[in-house]
Amino acid sequence: PLTVDWEAAHYDTGGYEHYLLKEISEQPDTVARTLRGRLDERFNVAHLGGLNMDARETRSFRRVKIIGCGSAYYSGQIGAQLIEELARIPADAEPASEFRYRNPVVEADTLYVAISQSGETYDTLAAVQELKRKGGRVLGIVNTVGSAIARECDGGVYLHAGPEVSVASTKAFTSTAVAFALLALHLGRVRDLSPADGRRICEGLRALPDQIKEILALEPQVKELAEKYADSPSIMFVGRVRGYPVAREGAQKLKEISYVHAEAYPASELKHGPLALIGPEMPTVAIVPDDELLDKNLTTLGEIRARGGRVLMVGHRVADPKLADDCLIVPKNEVELDPILLGIPLQLFAYHAAVALERDVDKPRNLAKSVTVE
Amino acid sequence: PLTVDWEAAHYDTGGYEHYLLKEISEQPDTVARTLRGRLDERFNVAHLGGLNMDARETRSFRRVKIIGCGSAYYSGQIGAQLIEELARIPADAEPASEFRYRNPVVEADTLYVAISQSGETYDTLAAVQELKRKGGRVLGIVNTVGSAIARECDGGVYLHAGPEVSVASTKAFTSTAVAFALLALHLGRVRDLSPADGRRICEGLRALPDQIKEILALEPQVKELAEKYADSPSIMFVGRVRGYPVAREGAQKLKEISYVHAEAYPASELKHGPLALIGPEMPTVAIVPDDELLDKNLTTLGEIRARGGRVLMVGHRVADPKLADDCLIVPKNEVELDPILLGIPLQLFAYHAAVALERDVDKPRNLAKSVTVE
Repeated sequence: PLTVDWEAAHYDTGGYEHYLLKEISEQPDTVARTLRGRLDERFNVAHLGGLNMDARETRSFRRVKIIGCGSAYYSGQIGAQLIEELARIPADAEPASEFRYRNPVVEADTLYVAISQSGETYDTLAAVQELKRKGGRVLGIVNTVGSAIARECDGGVYLHAGPEVSVASTKAFTSTAVAFALLALHLGRVRDLSPADGRRICEGLRALPDQIKEILALEPQVKELAEKYADSPSIMFVGRVRGYPVAREGAQKLKEISYVHAEAYPASELKHGPLALIGPEMPTVAIVPDDELLDKNLTTLGEIRARGGRVLMVGHRVADPKLADDCLIVPKNEVELDPILLGIPLQLFAYHAAVALERDVDKPRNLAKSVTVE
Repeated sequence: PLTVDWEAAHYDTGGYEHYLLKEISEQPDTVARTLRGRLDERFNVAHLGGLNMDARETRSFRRVKIIGCGSAYYSGQIGAQLIEELARIPADAEPASEFRYRNPVVEADTLYVAISQSGETYDTLAAVQELKRKGGRVLGIVNTVGSAIARECDGGVYLHAGPEVSVASTKAFTSTAVAFALLALHLGRVRDLSPADGRRICEGLRALPDQIKEILALEPQVKELAEKYADSPSIMFVGRVRGYPVAREGAQKLKEISYVHAEAYPASELKHGPLALIGPEMPTVAIVPDDELLDKNLTTLGEIRARGGRVLMVGHRVADPKLADDCLIVPKNEVELDPILLGIPLQLFAYHAAVALERDVDKPRNLAKSVTVE
């Protein structure tokens, strides 16, 4: 085992009431640490020394398959979206535990990426070992230096987000999404992503820490909204394309620490089933970025409101009060990077809902921080 | 437009209280119709004339991507599993509406499969048109002969399940899964699936209609269980690998017609978040086939019970009463084909839950039979 150089101060709550709030609040710094030394201004590329792959090998992959458990899997969905969008390599994410048990076809021209905050998640580790056994090329996106998954992988990206103590992941989730943006930039810039688009993404990444500060300043408003919506036994979270994994992680956070039955669904799929659930008793949190799908998302809000559903919109522009009861407006970055920012108010929302419901925020019932058993 | 030869009798409830129950009960016949003339005993292959592909082209695909909306998407997940398992081609399913809006990479060596009962689902049709525009090879799995999607595709498989009137899909869902088993057999037998395995699958398929009759005979027991569990405002559905899409469709059916907040989750992912929701107030329906994952699934049941959660197990073998409060035992087929059968008791479960809750079974609130708008 390696020696890790975090000091004792990293393990106290630093004046915050809970580790979770401390870790949410640290994110301007933790994101800056994930980015540090990794943006190259000359070529507008990401410098990721730990990948252990030369440019020719990096170009050779025709697929990216991302695996992880829980929030790591949802951050992997953001990653798959970033990679397919910026590098034009078909990419998808899958729960590691499902992947390892279904005897998947493992291919030489697929790049596998395993995600784990602790680096010790048993199902993810077992999936990595199965991939390696079949000759798969696996990168790790891991927070804990020297952990089992980090050691098993062919290379990877460390998050440098510092110890995460609260059971529900927040800063590691955000830093994983940032690491995927760096990986997508890297894969894109050895392919067809232009220097201009590379610069655009680099500048967007550099803007993240300050924008996260702006989001954290919204805390009083988020607290009020969380208290308003927390008494619903069920809440629907919806998003389209880039917004969908944000909705999934938002619902997961609320489930984990408030025990509210939050479920995420692709906004476009609502009318194929779950719309039957919508009524005054089940509110919806809708992720509505100002991207090319804005109009489609606003139409969905109208459908929810027409069924008497209350809507809390999280996005970039205040919506017509006919479409949303409440709007939480966050700073805008590049469309590809917006999911990273849109997730942060949902962490605060889950936190304040859990506090309002008097839950044990840092140690929710039934859950462990790292699942190191099958 | 073509002339369709279904008689008026297909459009009445035929003595059943609801179209939904009629359509569930028709499944021994509708599955037999989907299979008719398509199993070739000489080579133990599926004969699917409508694919319009010769053997060489059929061998050329390196990927299968399946798209559909709502229940069609979930049947596509069963299909992806069947294809990857029998033909060893990496396959996955995605909601058509998400696919069409995310500017997906479209590849020449990927076989695309679009699913729609009506053949008129707008998002699926638009996705097919986008695929065709980019030169993608698209097959349709469609019930309605001569429908828009059937006409747009390069070829496909008709379900021959007859008109489906109730808004919630049942017989079309089951026949789609059967059609995917035929397609998987076809793709597998031009690759490495052995004649012996081909015969095993052919025999399994032939056994389905009689086994469905056996399941329908369980209706009194399912009714009792549905009445027992229907008063829970939230129910979790879990399954692993082959059982997961079964759980998803089971939850979808319950959502649609009973308005109970049913959510499906991979059983292996429970401990990465949703286990926090489990307690005496939220029961779980667990899909537990007698396959190589049986022990893992039983462990999950133990974890749920340890948190005070009630468990209704749907599977092949009665579990220890310490692990499940109730067991619904269905006939066993081949492991690859079991998902087709395991879904049927869940249709009856949703039906009787909806009746017990006095819902408008055939016309659930907020939903349309075919979503022909965006």
